Amino acid sequence: MNSEPLILVVNDDGITAKGIRSLVEVAKKFGQVVVVAPDKAQSGMGHAVTINGIIRAQEQNIFGEGVQAYSCSGTPADCVKFGISQIIKKKPDLILSGVNHGNNSATNVLYSGTMSAALEGAMEGITSIGFSLLDYAADADFSASMHYAEIIVRNVLNDDKLPENFCLNVNIPKGSIEEIKGIRFGRQAEAFWDDWFEHRKDPGGKDYYWLTGTFHNHDKGEDTDEYALANMYVSAVPVQYDLTAYHTLKHLQQWPQ
Amino acid sequence: MNSEPLILVVNDDGITAKGIRSLVEVAKKFGQVVVVAPDKAQSGMGHAVTINGIIRAQEQNIFGEGVQAYSCSGTPADCVKFGISQIIKKKPDLILSGVNHGNNSATNVLYSGTMSAALEGAMEGITSIGFSLLDYAADADFSASMHYAEIIVRNVLNDDKLPENFCLNVNIPKGSIEEIKGIRFGRQAEAFWDDWFEHRKDPGGKDYYWLTGTFHNHDKGEDTDEYALANMYVSAVPVQYDLTAYHTLKHLQQWPQ
Repeated sequence: MNSEPLILVVNDDGITAKGIRSLVEVAKKFGQVVVVAPDKAQSGMGHAVTINGIIRAQEQNIFGEGVQAYSCSGTPADCVKFGISQIIKKKPDLILSGVNHGNNSATNVLYSGTMSAALEGAMEGITSIGFSLLDYAADADFSASMHYAEIIVRNVLNDDKLPENFCLNVNIPKGSIEEIKGIRFGRQAEAFWDDWFEHRKDPGGKDYYWLTGTFHNHDKGEDTDEYALANMYVSAVPVQYDLTAYHTLKHLQQWPQ
Repeated sequence: MNSEPLILVVNDDGITAKGIRSLVEVAKKFGQVVVVAPDKAQSGMGHAVTINGIIRAQEQNIFGEGVQAYSCSGTPADCVKFGISQIIKKKPDLILSGVNHGNNSATNVLYSGTMSAALEGAMEGITSIGFSLLDYAADADFSASMHYAEIIVRNVLNDDKLPENFCLNVNIPKGSIEEIKGIRFGRQAEAFWDDWFEHRKDPGGKDYYWLTGTFHNHDKGEDTDEYALANMYVSAVPVQYDLTAYHTLKHLQQWPQ
């Protein structure tokens, strides 16, 4: 790592969200910061990329002097691709995504624009960290998030044994620095959304639906992100983009063809 | 498995695509078929879900008698959630996604609406299979895809040892049944997009960009999906939604806090 790392900051709540401003403040302590973030909220976008439409981008002066920033019409994953290919024009040393307004633990990692941006970075061979605070409020208190983001970024930058496609999913419980007990490294819990749709009629009498649901943790393990968060620890789960279910491969190879 | 399995068919190319018609034909041989598919092309949508907007759905008579079908304004993952929660109102025995017009091998699995719909099914505890043909043409020849989809669906329905969250990513090379050599089960290759953006000016002189790129296989393994496809085999990769990078956990637990 060179002495002044180049850090790309992205998010999914949009470039004007409080969470990304907090993360930029942390990033500035460690190196040169470039921001490429969506021009509107892109929550729940998963790993969507814009392949059937165009991308626009606009330079923005939001984060003060020394921070080059662009709003981008694309998804969070698009922002990473666009930032590297069109703005920075080389690989940054680190990608920080977030701080997301809301939970990205357990299977939420798959729906999360924040974490998909981080995984996109990892796929491009760049160490990437996604941060999420368990508070959906626009004016959420990011003090503890900033405190722990600083600890985690310092550890990542000082660790020369990390694989180059290292990606970390960090979730911070809602609470003060004093209330949070530390960081626990663990695995993604077997916890899922139980979905339902709220059925409404529009003013013309036509049906429409809102996706909603409740989140259930079916996992009794004490080594999970859900357990850490429920016990007021910051949860950190290393994540990977290899989805192969290796444990079933041998069984499948016995199928008749 | 009961004698007449209930099969939910989804896709990401939209309900009028040729690929989904081919898959419905295969599904009809095995059980009762319900289709819930996007009302427009949703390629590259990854695991996006509609949380900041509404969903609409419309019954459609596209697949002939006996096949209940709905077009849905949502993403492929939305279609699975909506189909189970609002249309079928119970868990189907099987979800089939596709046949996609285009490749979903290697890291494409993360961008793929087809595979995200299948993974969504697996997260809901339903055996799910995504099928993709390596041909982007709207009028692609799906004969070989149908042949192999039938073999794979039969194996899945006859296999009582599969985990209930089993998910399979099937890619079919472009070619005739005679040209394709069989099915190879393997892992997701370390193969990635090298992105770039084509910069254009709109009629008003404003900048816009198209995401494009080339796909590179950096993986020398002969046990990968890329190797299978390059050698004219159907590739089948079992996939999972647990993204935890277990191999780095122990190392991270040594970080100072």
